[in-house]
Amino acid sequence: MRVALVGCGHIGGSLALALREAGAASPSRVIGHDASDAAARRALERGIIDELAGSPEDAARSAELVILAVPVRAIVPVAARLAGTSAIVTDVGSTKAGVVRGCEAVLARFVGGHPIAGTERAGPDAADAALFRGRKVFLTPTERTERAAHDQVAALWRTAGAAHVADLDAEAHDRIFAAVSHLPHVAAYALVSAIGGVGHGGRDFVGLTGGGFQDTTRIASTPPAMWVDVFLENRDALLPLIDQLGSHVAAIRAAIVAGDGPEIARLLGEARAARERILGPS
Amino acid sequence: MRVALVGCGHIGGSLALALREAGAASPSRVIGHDASDAAARRALERGIIDELAGSPEDAARSAELVILAVPVRAIVPVAARLAGTSAIVTDVGSTKAGVVRGCEAVLARFVGGHPIAGTERAGPDAADAALFRGRKVFLTPTERTERAAHDQVAALWRTAGAAHVADLDAEAHDRIFAAVSHLPHVAAYALVSAIGGVGHGGRDFVGLTGGGFQDTTRIASTPPAMWVDVFLENRDALLPLIDQLGSHVAAIRAAIVAGDGPEIARLLGEARAARERILGPS
Repeated sequence: MRVALVGCGHIGGSLALALREAGAASPSRVIGHDASDAAARRALERGIIDELAGSPEDAARSAELVILAVPVRAIVPVAARLAGTSAIVTDVGSTKAGVVRGCEAVLARFVGGHPIAGTERAGPDAADAALFRGRKVFLTPTERTERAAHDQVAALWRTAGAAHVADLDAEAHDRIFAAVSHLPHVAAYALVSAIGGVGHGGRDFVGLTGGGFQDTTRIASTPPAMWVDVFLENRDALLPLIDQLGSHVAAIRAAIVAGDGPEIARLLGEARAARERILGPS
Repeated sequence: MRVALVGCGHIGGSLALALREAGAASPSRVIGHDASDAAARRALERGIIDELAGSPEDAARSAELVILAVPVRAIVPVAARLAGTSAIVTDVGSTKAGVVRGCEAVLARFVGGHPIAGTERAGPDAADAALFRGRKVFLTPTERTERAAHDQVAALWRTAGAAHVADLDAEAHDRIFAAVSHLPHVAAYALVSAIGGVGHGGRDFVGLTGGGFQDTTRIASTPPAMWVDVFLENRDALLPLIDQLGSHVAAIRAAIVAGDGPEIARLLGEARAARERILGPS
């Protein structure tokens, strides 16, 4: 199978490496493009891709499968440049409704996808053939999705090591991930900024942070570029949740100001119970 | 050394077990009291304490060292009941300025302490002799603190396995831990409550959470009782930070509403840089 990889970073590069390791794409068959020449050359050096293409169109020209692993808001513009391709096209974006709508408008054989994997690292140097091993991948087919294309993309992810490939409505996907992923990123970024604004820019705290701080803020070390796109693309689902976050912070604040211990206990107890519900039976 | 343990839960129980394991207190010498009879009996069953006392006063009667391992806002009231004791008294509370002030008013030989250890578990069943191994412990002596008492408490923590026992001004301690510990707890509790308010109380998200959600909210599964006390006791340091948290959430929200990608990137980039400063050179 001849694969075009548009975007040779952490996720796209990991997928190409995983497919190669599984023998799904022989070494002469991954043609890559990246908006960053340096990233594309690095992907070639690392053996993530076999050939460099000068544009997404060139990469896709004779491909049977095109993987769009570019930032979320670049997916539809890249898809538009591939209009008319007979290849199956899939993406790895963290938001789905707008992407699926935009890609289906210009591509005949598009299947939306979102692997639930990733780290705070970025770029082809962070590509890891084992990244998807045991992970979940969601596909977001619509009534227009070609069954064979869907099944081939599902098979691709299983080949890459995913343990669980499931279909999800694109709008439901975006509401769910606004809650379990995008809002936690907003909270983590806001939290470290709040702390970094005191104690000499946070320097007073060096060596004094424990596991609580480190775990709670780990995702705030993710490179911003991806999250700018996700926050903008999923704003309709995300904004009401940000308002909820603000309300709950304000409620805890008000109870502290009032010196109302039982109310603080109630608020924290509700939070703890919510976490148990969200995580489900372990 | 005859030790009185007032509060036989996760932290107090772990300290008694660690001291016992290190041979600092022979099996006949830890006299315990807990406001919960069930917890005290469980501590006796687990060998955390050797004798049950009916009150803090009874526990402390012939002790050379008294460890107050009760919730923060119970420390000063318990200390008041021990007024006149000739024993060294120390505590393990997460806030220090109010505790030190209140305890020094009634006790001759008080040394404030705060081990930087703990998990989301609670009670004598969570006691673990290895809890303090390799950890930091802060002591908050004042000009009134007896040098010999300070040194004995420092030695106690080293015996329990702490890698680093250091002195810190009580007010500075409270400002620092408001930032690196108390505010992250506020954020984590508010975050899970926000998520738990949608998706059928969060049940729609079962099986869909990844490492980001789990890490970011882990500390929100801590039993609320301890945090009620900490938030109230450290409100002066905590409230301005909660306001900062709210402001940073609002700033991200405003940039999303405005569709202002560069501003979102700037805010997230600042957060990421703050985290690097706070964690210091790795």
